[in-house]
Amino acid sequence: MKTSGYAATDANVPLQPFSFERRDLRPGDVGIDILYCGVCHTDLHMARNDWGFSAYPLVPGHEIVGRVSAVGSGVSRFKPGDNVAIGTMVDSCLDCDQCRRNEEQMCRNGVTVTYNGQDRISGDITYGGYSNYIVAREEFVLRVPDGLDLARAGPLLCAGITTYSPLRNWNVGPGSRVGVIGLGGLGHLAVKFASALGTEVTVLTRSEGKIGTARDLGADHVVLSTSSEQMAAAAYAFDVIIDTVPYEHDLGPYIDLLDADGTLVIAGSLVDTPAFSNLRLLMGRRRIAGTPSGGLKQTQEMLDFCARKNILPECEMIAIQDIGMAFERLERGDVRYRFVIDMASLPAVQAA
Amino acid sequence: MKTSGYAATDANVPLQPFSFERRDLRPGDVGIDILYCGVCHTDLHMARNDWGFSAYPLVPGHEIVGRVSAVGSGVSRFKPGDNVAIGTMVDSCLDCDQCRRNEEQMCRNGVTVTYNGQDRISGDITYGGYSNYIVAREEFVLRVPDGLDLARAGPLLCAGITTYSPLRNWNVGPGSRVGVIGLGGLGHLAVKFASALGTEVTVLTRSEGKIGTARDLGADHVVLSTSSEQMAAAAYAFDVIIDTVPYEHDLGPYIDLLDADGTLVIAGSLVDTPAFSNLRLLMGRRRIAGTPSGGLKQTQEMLDFCARKNILPECEMIAIQDIGMAFERLERGDVRYRFVIDMASLPAVQAA
Repeated sequence: MKTSGYAATDANVPLQPFSFERRDLRPGDVGIDILYCGVCHTDLHMARNDWGFSAYPLVPGHEIVGRVSAVGSGVSRFKPGDNVAIGTMVDSCLDCDQCRRNEEQMCRNGVTVTYNGQDRISGDITYGGYSNYIVAREEFVLRVPDGLDLARAGPLLCAGITTYSPLRNWNVGPGSRVGVIGLGGLGHLAVKFASALGTEVTVLTRSEGKIGTARDLGADHVVLSTSSEQMAAAAYAFDVIIDTVPYEHDLGPYIDLLDADGTLVIAGSLVDTPAFSNLRLLMGRRRIAGTPSGGLKQTQEMLDFCARKNILPECEMIAIQDIGMAFERLERGDVRYRFVIDMASLPAVQAA
Repeated sequence: MKTSGYAATDANVPLQPFSFERRDLRPGDVGIDILYCGVCHTDLHMARNDWGFSAYPLVPGHEIVGRVSAVGSGVSRFKPGDNVAIGTMVDSCLDCDQCRRNEEQMCRNGVTVTYNGQDRISGDITYGGYSNYIVAREEFVLRVPDGLDLARAGPLLCAGITTYSPLRNWNVGPGSRVGVIGLGGLGHLAVKFASALGTEVTVLTRSEGKIGTARDLGADHVVLSTSSEQMAAAAYAFDVIIDTVPYEHDLGPYIDLLDADGTLVIAGSLVDTPAFSNLRLLMGRRRIAGTPSGGLKQTQEMLDFCARKNILPECEMIAIQDIGMAFERLERGDVRYRFVIDMASLPAVQAA
């Protein structure tokens, strides 16, 4: 189907209108009219080829919310009109051990990411959610539960699951002491999730100005990481720390805040971790872990949890024509806390 | 009691004969005639003040095997003549949450280490096992089970428990794929333990010359870490990797060998971990952990396991007069795999 979107055509030019063809529905496919799409840091990095593997034209967007417009002949779980979502992946083998344990994001045969990926059948490069229509295999379509605001649900699909997943995988709950470093798109959701999961949540921030906001989001405590007294007082104070800071930074002072057998989870960051002393890990048998996104089952669980607990990201709605401005503001951290593109702003495809 | 030993009197001089007074037995104390003491890398570092907190005179030694010579009035578990051992600690509060969960090495109130520690009652600096007699609180005395060769058991008390502990804490067993980096005092025991626990063991080494030795120790496979082909073929191949290399080295290539949710455990090293890309942790949700020694219960479990499975370190017996030579050889890695001091070589205390 003829589809309208915005694409980067090169690393150094702004995104611009781009028309392309979405594949016809295969038997297991769902066709989705996109209503909203969140703006992830990854979109910015990929548009600019920061990681060196961008293929152009590149249509970003993997925090997609929309409505089913059509389904393939073999689709059983969805029907036209259903509110649905797509996150960072649109296909995987669904047959390997990782897929079978509901960790499709770690598929042995390679997950097909929502954009800049490669379709497993046609070999075509995948185009993301900065567009008005998308097609995905039924299994990779999430259900947006009733009561969850469609306009704000998008960022849950990447920022949300990337922070919800480690909280669940490291089994936090009442009695757990959770620290969150960074209060951006990921961090503010980590605070909301950790709070809703019943944990004692502490925001670790460099900025006094964020104390009030942190508490508004649900933090029980705030530790100023610039205060050596406060950091010393927080030694051994956390079971899990979710680190959402997207730039290179020293982990050492944060490792010291982990209690025995505690884990510092690096959520979604692809930068380097600088050198640290092993003594800091050895004392208390502490751990550092990375976490990618989550699997389909856990992502659906998160959406249902958000509907039940009324958890939504704080969003700033933009028109797709403002994506250049949004990228600029994102780069300097000037967003509270996630941009969402209202796809009603995207003109339908013009006749060629 | 007047005790004979060897001490470092300064960072820059060789160990030399040193006489000192051990405390009289308190009600809960056990007095032990030392028969053997293993030579740990830590002894070398501490004698030279490499970590900056050595107090002189310093009597090293925390891989102690001996025989009970006397017990305090309140001691119930030991009697004169019992074969016993002491590891890296001689006291802790035994009351905090860590002690109560049998992790005395992480005591909240500070463990009293076997040497260069501070006695909790008298405040005296503790002296270690390079001596002919030691006194310790009953709870910190381990039982050497019948059938375990006393002359070779010493290194189990530090090198042994430091590698046995992570294998047990990370729950390896039949079906687990364990990698061991480094084939020194710790590494060779890690291989023996992992094999005896029923895992599939791979030694990761830079040296072709160690392939035969690795197999003799129980390794199922050997990967040459200098071979990019072999390293690439081993990607995602391990559930747990025990890293026993005592000098700074790049973890990146080893992180890549972890399977999903796998952990690289840094065993006993106090050097720095150099920078690595978070992507390596994020892919596969991998983890890095530190591990200190183990608790008393686990240490006793290990000794019993060793007796049952006939596991002993490979040792080179030395006289205490040769400790200078042993330190030199230890420093250049010239030992297979652990020096043990035969304390029969130590002259009794001369009348003053």
